[in-house]
Amino acid sequence: MSLHGLGNGSSVTTGDDGYDDWYINEPEEGPAIQEIVSPCSPTIPDHLYHTIMAPVSLAVLVVLSVLVKRRKLCKGCLNGVPGIPSPVNFLEEQENKGLIAAVFGILICSLCKVFLDDNPLPFLSNTSLQNREYWKILALFYYPALYYPLLACMTVRHRAGDILGSALSWFHCGILIWQKIECPQLPKYYKFYSLLSALPQISCFLALSFIYPALLLRNCRGASNYKASGRSYCEKYLKNILNKNQQKTRGYNPNQSFRPWLFLRSYIYTFQQGFQLPLMLVLSATVAIIVVYQVALLLLVFFLPTMQRIRAGIGDDFALMLAGFGIVLAKDKTEVVNVVKYYLWALEVCYVSALVISCSLTVAMLMRSLVMHRTNLKALYRGAVSDVFQFPQKLQPSHPAIVSWMSFTSYQAALTCLGLLLQQTVFFLCNVSFTFLVIIPLAFGRNLLLFRVLKAMWPIWLMLVSVVTLQHLCARFAFLHKECKQQEVTNRRMLYLFTYLLFPVNFLLGLLVGVWRMVISALYNIVHLCRLDLSLLHRAVESFDPAYRTYCHFLKIEVSQSHPLLKAACFLLLQLSRHEGQTGNKPIDVEEGIQLMQSKKPVLNKVKSKQARARWWVAYTLLKNPTLLASRASFLFQCTANGTQAVSSY
Amino acid sequence: MSLHGLGNGSSVTTGDDGYDDWYINEPEEGPAIQEIVSPCSPTIPDHLYHTIMAPVSLAVLVVLSVLVKRRKLCKGCLNGVPGIPSPVNFLEEQENKGLIAAVFGILICSLCKVFLDDNPLPFLSNTSLQNREYWKILALFYYPALYYPLLACMTVRHRAGDILGSALSWFHCGILIWQKIECPQLPKYYKFYSLLSALPQISCFLALSFIYPALLLRNCRGASNYKASGRSYCEKYLKNILNKNQQKTRGYNPNQSFRPWLFLRSYIYTFQQGFQLPLMLVLSATVAIIVVYQVALLLLVFFLPTMQRIRAGIGDDFALMLAGFGIVLAKDKTEVVNVVKYYLWALEVCYVSALVISCSLTVAMLMRSLVMHRTNLKALYRGAVSDVFQFPQKLQPSHPAIVSWMSFTSYQAALTCLGLLLQQTVFFLCNVSFTFLVIIPLAFGRNLLLFRVLKAMWPIWLMLVSVVTLQHLCARFAFLHKECKQQEVTNRRMLYLFTYLLFPVNFLLGLLVGVWRMVISALYNIVHLCRLDLSLLHRAVESFDPAYRTYCHFLKIEVSQSHPLLKAACFLLLQLSRHEGQTGNKPIDVEEGIQLMQSKKPVLNKVKSKQARARWWVAYTLLKNPTLLASRASFLFQCTANGTQAVSSY
Repeated sequence: MSLHGLGNGSSVTTGDDGYDDWYINEPEEGPAIQEIVSPCSPTIPDHLYHTIMAPVSLAVLVVLSVLVKRRKLCKGCLNGVPGIPSPVNFLEEQENKGLIAAVFGILICSLCKVFLDDNPLPFLSNTSLQNREYWKILALFYYPALYYPLLACMTVRHRAGDILGSALSWFHCGILIWQKIECPQLPKYYKFYSLLSALPQISCFLALSFIYPALLLRNCRGASNYKASGRSYCEKYLKNILNKNQQKTRGYNPNQSFRPWLFLRSYIYTFQQGFQLPLMLVLSATVAIIVVYQVALLLLVFFLPTMQRIRAGIGDDFALMLAGFGIVLAKDKTEVVNVVKYYLWALEVCYVSALVISCSLTVAMLMRSLVMHRTNLKALYRGAVSDVFQFPQKLQPSHPAIVSWMSFTSYQAALTCLGLLLQQTVFFLCNVSFTFLVIIPLAFGRNLLLFRVLKAMWPIWLMLVSVVTLQHLCARFAFLHKECKQQEVTNRRMLYLFTYLLFPVNFLLGLLVGVWRMVISALYNIVHLCRLDLSLLHRAVESFDPAYRTYCHFLKIEVSQSHPLLKAACFLLLQLSRHEGQTGNKPIDVEEGIQLMQSKKPVLNKVKSKQARARWWVAYTLLKNPTLLASRASFLFQCTANGTQAVSSY
Repeated sequence: MSLHGLGNGSSVTTGDDGYDDWYINEPEEGPAIQEIVSPCSPTIPDHLYHTIMAPVSLAVLVVLSVLVKRRKLCKGCLNGVPGIPSPVNFLEEQENKGLIAAVFGILICSLCKVFLDDNPLPFLSNTSLQNREYWKILALFYYPALYYPLLACMTVRHRAGDILGSALSWFHCGILIWQKIECPQLPKYYKFYSLLSALPQISCFLALSFIYPALLLRNCRGASNYKASGRSYCEKYLKNILNKNQQKTRGYNPNQSFRPWLFLRSYIYTFQQGFQLPLMLVLSATVAIIVVYQVALLLLVFFLPTMQRIRAGIGDDFALMLAGFGIVLAKDKTEVVNVVKYYLWALEVCYVSALVISCSLTVAMLMRSLVMHRTNLKALYRGAVSDVFQFPQKLQPSHPAIVSWMSFTSYQAALTCLGLLLQQTVFFLCNVSFTFLVIIPLAFGRNLLLFRVLKAMWPIWLMLVSVVTLQHLCARFAFLHKECKQQEVTNRRMLYLFTYLLFPVNFLLGLLVGVWRMVISALYNIVHLCRLDLSLLHRAVESFDPAYRTYCHFLKIEVSQSHPLLKAACFLLLQLSRHEGQTGNKPIDVEEGIQLMQSKKPVLNKVKSKQARARWWVAYTLLKNPTLLASRASFLFQCTANGTQAVSSY
């Protein structure tokens, strides 16, 4: 498409010098530029929806709490199991990951609403929004509380819970879809923004509306297989470990020959038999993907419709205005308009392509993160601490580790958001520079600034290139000779002479290398900002990177508290005690570790084979996980005080 | 100092509203603002100096070449030892480091001149400078050639060379000092810039003027102790290794408790007995320090005198101009002038303090680099490759390694220059932001922008701080309990509840963490840009950092080609062969390795003790340096073809 051809269709020639009405007509912002979307109010507006749903959620919570209380009336209120149902068993949950991820997805969508809406708590009237900061802060706590019953219904593990959960999710989902069908267009930002931004939330609610009935069905068939999935995963993991020969993978080794296919494949997360990611990692991935969608949507609607409106609004007046500032892009007014429109179109293309690049890179980084999480977890599970951490670390819970574990998912979401924004800015600037300094000059012969600079400097570039070539040729053919399959340095005096004489030229090359070093390290850090599994600092000080420190602490808690082998061993022991009729507490209700550790009654008379099997598991676990020895030692220490019988049962 | 008090001395009150002569007086650039330095031409101007020195240098080179030829007439022209004397034995030289460093210092000072002067080749007349790029390129090769004899005189190791070297350096030094005494002030940039920028060059020439006579004196006393220093260093190193128990140091371990004194001490390079840095590292440090001086000087003279002139030139007219742009800093004209002058003074202070910070940080980084170079070299000497490189590497010369080794010194200089410029820019901006957003608002109650923003956001900050405190308190006192000296997670349901409910707030905290991550990684990279001994990329891809790759290759060449133990062994063997009267070639003249490897005449009958000693050295060397085994194997392989006698002699 030639610039000259652009305006041929609609050009109104007013003579060679088209600026006859100089400075007279100001460009007018007509109604053609402004996009008008009629305000729309659904049958159930937001404030009514929240006024209904908040009490309903509270009521559901009370019902669930009573349900839990009734079942646990003998346990007391503050002895590890309060009356309020737990939101979710983050460390143990192996089934229902989809359900929990859906609730977190809904939560992060609401968070976007809190940041962007003028009315963060929709059931307040607009008049009471004097101090919006306070209401925003309140909204940060309101939304988790509002969606809390959706999680709690699942953790009760009771038919009533499933029924309540199904009803709640249908209710939420129905109202949301109804609202969007009635009012698909809203005037905020861009007419379809409201609809598009609600899509992830609607999908999450839809998922919930299917998962809860499915749970109910399964629960009706029989409660016994509730725990089956979690246990079966641990046993599968164990079987997988026992069956296969372990292959020690140590990440990407640069000494291996570089294979693009292998490199690309390392960025794609594929399912591996016998390993499932812990719940927190699934949550962080889900939340991060939704954040990518929401941020990309925002970036798109803030820029593209505005640019398109500006492009549509550019007329002959604009050419006059430009000429008023002394910018003459072409002789003809119509041509100027076409050139400006073309430039604006190029800007849009740059913006959209930058957004595509940023989003793809962010998603690739998130996938790579998942791969690395799996690799690191597997390494830590088998006790290979040095494969993961640079310096030896104790895999024990500690006070900063717990705080880091609590905030891991949200940090992942926040860093993804920041990383995407930064990438978009940088790639947009790069794209614009490339387009306006290279592509447009090459295509239309305008803006030849860069090429003029390059042309003026060509002797220096030629000299640098020839010196580099000379050095490489000399190094290969003059300063090295092969002797007995090994290369040796020869012609040393010439080598020293070249080293001395080329010192000033190498200084210039060093400046280029320095610029390249700056660019590559900045780009690397910008692209990898969203990854918590690697430190952006040098390996000697990597713990000063707050995000990486959070990740390391997170790993410590995950590995020390939910090691699949330990869990498998616990399941086996629980199975044994259940078989002997100690059915005081169902293992489903209480955390297994605590039940096991606080158990004071030694199990004495068992079938020999079962004892042997249990011992064998423990021995295997300890053999493969030397870090668990400390726990075992302390257990032994504690138990020795209560008699030696407990030891024999373990 | 109060702003109101600033102008009391010179205020001319023209009523309350001082803008009576609005828009009439334009600020004039009077002769008070422009600094006039009368042009000065020394008795021996630059072009005469170069017109004399270039032929003199050439003549000296020819004399030296003849001298070398005469001594090596039997060796042929291209058999490793051409007629042109070698500039310096970069890999072997252990003495005269100061002399070589001085010449490189002179060279880098000339390089600054090439970049900044209009007349890069001073013996050309100004009229012939049509294509300045070509002359600049020529100058890049001219200056090394001009100072070449200063190095070559030393490497000839002959009294005539020392006499010529002394004469040359005196001549250079004399003319330079004479020029600067005659014309201390020049109009370029700043009146004293020319003098200040020549100071390092003068010091280097002065050093040469003392070193060469000293060499001559030593040479007159006896030529036999010429090689003593190099050999004695190797033997000292060996003795040091043999005497002391090796302490394995592995850099900074973050798991150790942080001790500020130890941390600071790790940034100070102190002399260690039994270890000397290789010549290339001494050169790179010298050159980098001179670059720091030159760049800092340039930064200073480009900014400070200009700002001071502008500050001096600000009068009442400036207040009018500001008011014309709608900027009203104060009611009174005099007060406005005082405020503007105060702001400019604050800018100057920011600039100078940023420069001081940048220079100190750069020097600290260079010192730390030297410490790390020593640590790495010592580790590689003892064969601990994994302590230095992340992945196993072969310590062999290769074609990229030779190119990297050749350019190492100049890359260090270039990166120091770039790093300093970048640091200055960043720290200046930081200082200015801090001064104008924090200090001036606090001191004078102006520009309260930042404080207003902080005040408007205080509920959010308070909420974030309280949530962080709450999380930490809960983690310490509610979610952890100590059991048998080990901390265990307890109150899990509350932990999960907090994790869920605080998800949105933690998202906000995550944004802050992300910003901190960006800031800290950017600052780290900017400060460490000048360090080649560490990669700015993550450890898995650290070889993609061009500067770090250069450094790794440099280490390979240094260790494989000038290992002190290998050199000590070679010295011992040479001593043996010299004792037996094989005085065909003095070991001083020929590279020891080559002489040793190409020696075809086996030494058969020796004193038993000497043979035993030699064997012991070899055994020890090989034991401590497994990487040398390959060389030995090839040597054996080559020698087996010539008979097994040579083997027994090794």
